[in-house]
Amino acid sequence: MRVLLTIAYDGTAYAGWQRQENALAVQQVVEEALASLIGCAVTLTAASRTDAGVHALGQRAAFNVEGLRIPLNKLPRVLNGLLPADISVSHAQAVPQDFNPRFAARFKTYRYQIWNASVPNPMYNRYSAFINQPLDILAMQKAARHFIGRHDFAAFCATGGSAKTTVREIYTCTISQAENLITLEITGNAFLYNMVRIIAGTLTYAGLGKINPCIIPDIIAARDRTQAGKTMPPQGLTLVEVQFKE
Amino acid sequence: MRVLLTIAYDGTAYAGWQRQENALAVQQVVEEALASLIGCAVTLTAASRTDAGVHALGQRAAFNVEGLRIPLNKLPRVLNGLLPADISVSHAQAVPQDFNPRFAARFKTYRYQIWNASVPNPMYNRYSAFINQPLDILAMQKAARHFIGRHDFAAFCATGGSAKTTVREIYTCTISQAENLITLEITGNAFLYNMVRIIAGTLTYAGLGKINPCIIPDIIAARDRTQAGKTMPPQGLTLVEVQFKE
Repeated sequence: MRVLLTIAYDGTAYAGWQRQENALAVQQVVEEALASLIGCAVTLTAASRTDAGVHALGQRAAFNVEGLRIPLNKLPRVLNGLLPADISVSHAQAVPQDFNPRFAARFKTYRYQIWNASVPNPMYNRYSAFINQPLDILAMQKAARHFIGRHDFAAFCATGGSAKTTVREIYTCTISQAENLITLEITGNAFLYNMVRIIAGTLTYAGLGKINPCIIPDIIAARDRTQAGKTMPPQGLTLVEVQFKE
Repeated sequence: MRVLLTIAYDGTAYAGWQRQENALAVQQVVEEALASLIGCAVTLTAASRTDAGVHALGQRAAFNVEGLRIPLNKLPRVLNGLLPADISVSHAQAVPQDFNPRFAARFKTYRYQIWNASVPNPMYNRYSAFINQPLDILAMQKAARHFIGRHDFAAFCATGGSAKTTVREIYTCTISQAENLITLEITGNAFLYNMVRIIAGTLTYAGLGKINPCIIPDIIAARDRTQAGKTMPPQGLTLVEVQFKE
């Protein structure tokens, strides 16, 4: 049987999703909890390899298991009893044997939060970037609209990505504000390495008046990383949701 | 000169506001930052002695200083450069020499958050209590209204409090819901030891159907701690605001 999990985590303490040699990753912690429950080694394949410090509300990851004795609807609560407080499984479902969450993803939604005030807020430190200069929300909203559509996002891709093409389609890209908290929410068919954090940095430049919102199409067209904004820090980023093809 | 600070903190790592022998308190960290800035020992007097694990967005604390060389409007950002990320000073103002934030407080607002879902949310763990049984919001809202007014809150006071009288006045007491997050917001002239956490526990009993909302007046009238709900855990509680007499 192949099982697909929905996983939420506070990424603060982890070196990202993907298992690695010298640092603790979310994947390793969940795999070890599964292994101790099932009695044999388990390998998870995730929809998104979130970076160190990035959070998730709706990460999806699949694994194979034979003869699972726990009913699937009870699996999340049993697993949560074995997981630390900063990782939680909310759902488990059976999927076809060839299901790969990464390739089956139809779109993903990310959120990027900015705490915009003269001083930081300790209750948002873990989940937002702090910017102490006033941001022009209208300029950010104007700039955000230009990202919607099918574009070559080479200017919004960190080196080290392994994508064959840098063309991606963005369906929604919105900026909202609730008191001092500014939130970017972006949905696309897929994202390049650091793409959301570079878009957030470029929108921040628009908000600070460093660039005019109407030059975003030129920045995209130039396909030059140096023309886009800086990469924003990881703790503001959350993988909110992954939707699959029918 | 006497200076009044507005202080926010994530209380997770601290043994509460008040300085103590064998554990790190928020008061000690802020006093040490002030002392290293000013060059001599400083004692802070706070509006509220929040418990271990309780958070604050608008704690207020005052101290005396002679010959402060930093302008008051620059003090918060300078202090924040010395403070850890989980404590932040947002405002500093001069107050009369006899100003005591505890006795000058006209009302205080607290917030209590509950994450109500079948599984916990790692991004709310630090700032909410987790309840996995469904809560009836309407019953909680009905129950909440009965706390408004001037009452003897002896049933809602943990042993160990030092108050001369257990009569307090509650101005507002509301329950709201945003998806799985349930928020109690309560404003009163003052609060007994653990009072908000016991009220939150009693409202939770109403939400679980363990008590009928209309018996809240009887529980108050009985002045018997054992008739009220359990004390909810500290991490759901935040001191939001302290308002002073004119």
